[in-house]
Amino acid sequence: MSNPLHINAGRLLGDIADLARIGASDSGGVHRPALSPADIEARAWFRERTRTGGFRPGEDGAGNLSAVLPAADPSARTLLLGSHLDTVPDGGRFDGALGVLAALEVLRTIREAGLILPVRLEAIAFTDEEGTHISLLGSKAAAGLLAEADLEHPHSSREAFAAGLARAGLTPEGLLSARRDPASLAGYLELHIEQGARLEQSGTDIGVVTAIVGIRSFWLTFTGEAAHAGTMPLPDRRDALWGAAAFIGRARAAVLADFMPGTMNCGIISVTPGAFNIAPGQARLALEFRHPDTAVLEEMEAALLALAGAAAEEHGLQLAVTPVGSVAATPLAADMIAAIERAADRLGRSHMRLASFAGHDAMSMQAITPSGMLFVPSVGGISHNPGEVTPDADIVSGANVLLHTVLDLAGAADRGS
Amino acid sequence: MSNPLHINAGRLLGDIADLARIGASDSGGVHRPALSPADIEARAWFRERTRTGGFRPGEDGAGNLSAVLPAADPSARTLLLGSHLDTVPDGGRFDGALGVLAALEVLRTIREAGLILPVRLEAIAFTDEEGTHISLLGSKAAAGLLAEADLEHPHSSREAFAAGLARAGLTPEGLLSARRDPASLAGYLELHIEQGARLEQSGTDIGVVTAIVGIRSFWLTFTGEAAHAGTMPLPDRRDALWGAAAFIGRARAAVLADFMPGTMNCGIISVTPGAFNIAPGQARLALEFRHPDTAVLEEMEAALLALAGAAAEEHGLQLAVTPVGSVAATPLAADMIAAIERAADRLGRSHMRLASFAGHDAMSMQAITPSGMLFVPSVGGISHNPGEVTPDADIVSGANVLLHTVLDLAGAADRGS
Repeated sequence: MSNPLHINAGRLLGDIADLARIGASDSGGVHRPALSPADIEARAWFRERTRTGGFRPGEDGAGNLSAVLPAADPSARTLLLGSHLDTVPDGGRFDGALGVLAALEVLRTIREAGLILPVRLEAIAFTDEEGTHISLLGSKAAAGLLAEADLEHPHSSREAFAAGLARAGLTPEGLLSARRDPASLAGYLELHIEQGARLEQSGTDIGVVTAIVGIRSFWLTFTGEAAHAGTMPLPDRRDALWGAAAFIGRARAAVLADFMPGTMNCGIISVTPGAFNIAPGQARLALEFRHPDTAVLEEMEAALLALAGAAAEEHGLQLAVTPVGSVAATPLAADMIAAIERAADRLGRSHMRLASFAGHDAMSMQAITPSGMLFVPSVGGISHNPGEVTPDADIVSGANVLLHTVLDLAGAADRGS
Repeated sequence: MSNPLHINAGRLLGDIADLARIGASDSGGVHRPALSPADIEARAWFRERTRTGGFRPGEDGAGNLSAVLPAADPSARTLLLGSHLDTVPDGGRFDGALGVLAALEVLRTIREAGLILPVRLEAIAFTDEEGTHISLLGSKAAAGLLAEADLEHPHSSREAFAAGLARAGLTPEGLLSARRDPASLAGYLELHIEQGARLEQSGTDIGVVTAIVGIRSFWLTFTGEAAHAGTMPLPDRRDALWGAAAFIGRARAAVLADFMPGTMNCGIISVTPGAFNIAPGQARLALEFRHPDTAVLEEMEAALLALAGAAAEEHGLQLAVTPVGSVAATPLAADMIAAIERAADRLGRSHMRLASFAGHDAMSMQAITPSGMLFVPSVGGISHNPGEVTPDADIVSGANVLLHTVLDLAGAADRGS
């Protein structure tokens, strides 16, 4: 039991530093949106690291890149380990990259240790997790969750999406044919930074993710009447922004009072006509809210939309509610949660269970195979930001827990000593 | 005294209908921002109407267009009558256009009546009253109120302003040299729609403007920290939009409680980064407020900026306040007020004194010559909106009061019988 197997810390940290140079932004972060030239460069770099690690590089129709460590039995099921290489605009160096590079490092460590596991191991980098074009694109494709209609309305634009696919040599047909056979899979594991501050604040090494939040998003359009900002007396106005502003404050208060640890966000707002001297006739507001419990998410939706309706009515406005997206809350696999906890215990790492308030590729994979996630701390909870930092020790600790979770699941924990 | 001189109602209404076709918008309004192609077309149309009316078309360095009816004495002072041809984006057909076309009609009527007045009459269309680029641009230039620095920060952009000037054949040098000699002027009169509902609600024919409101405007920039909309718990966020939204509601309440009949408006808002799943790090809000009393305007500024500061502090934000514009409250000339009231009385039109809550070219002109304004009713107070309506009878009534104010000031009221 002493001297359990460990990953090569220097090699993993070196890989993270090397990858962070691809798309490095002036602000010290990483700008590597999916299928951008920087992302294409990162993909080529990963293929090369796969090759130099001695693994056969693989790629499916969705552009998901793999490194494979075969099992003794060629018919063995595959345990997938991965995350994504793309970033949000001007994001950080750990979100996604950590999970992919730690997966590759786990494969290298197991091979170098001469371990022959009863499962095939595959380190996988999923395409466009962040949704530059389509959120969770690669993992949805792999899970068979992608429909032709999903390709019609990319977040970017049809032109930008088509250009990105062409850059990566991908096609819509390929995307729709990338589904993995669930019977071929033994599970999916993803190591990720927390992107919150709960681990740091509680001094915990490892977060064991119990569920990934459900997310709902809407456009709220408040419509009143544009008016001259001087001549229309205040009491007679139907100012659309007044309704939107009242809603924002009340929605925040309602979530704080009744729906914690749920979250709400109004991340985009615009008014028309849009002039210093015209009272807004219309205000368009992006609303998103999250909760790990589907039943509570339903209650939040009812409460928040009722608040929007009341704010509109108070100011003589009409309210139009347009659903934009809905992601179901995803409980992760109990077996995976238990295996991660055993691995952390084996390595003497403290751990706590928590929900993930961000979406991850594990949401897709859980649809076809038992999936688990583990988090390492993010300093200050900063994420989707150049200031994203996870200390080296936590990175190494997380990769080692990932390694031992694999060994545990493979029934090889003892051999990993 | 019976059968006082009247303008040609059909001709004036025809001109208004013709001009409204230039820049006609799908919504039934008029989209003719200053120096846009539609505005250039309207300017050409006005020159042509000036010519066909038998007047020499004039244009100064600021692009202000004139039609002149000479006096017998070539050294006679000029009584200016006018307003503007430009509109706000998707505005109405009367705001500005009425004053220019009624002025032209008054000149035509006086000439056709064979009246030789002791003043030179000039119908004038001022450039960019609405501030597409610079508010009251043409009248400020004519009044010598335009400084070189004013041209550096147009509301549009330097590029758009330069393009507009080029389109109209104007230059910064021309703008800065358009000042009229005050000694050459006998006064300025402007007929305008009320853009409010006080005349309509009180059943009054003519509003006699005593003062034009002071206006102050600011950019308020709330800065917090952008954050992941899921992983950053609500209590830890420094969401810039929360501060801006709280401010909007409180500013409105403060003006309603303490500063009526003053007004406030937040007519533009934007947030960055601007995504459904990112809590805004920065919110930029356009604030404008108005009051006809300068002392109260000062108090409003102090109160509103204090509210903005408090809202920022509550949400852990920084607030940057950037003054955008300041227009002093402008009392109009007592002689003009009296002359308008005499003319209305002479024509049997009811009238009331009121302050204008909109800025007008008369604000500029009052700086160099005694200026007066008269209002006609706006149905429902609707303005800066395609739904702007003034009934034909009120248009004709207003133009006739303008005519008789001119005759009164020229000492020719009796000859106008």
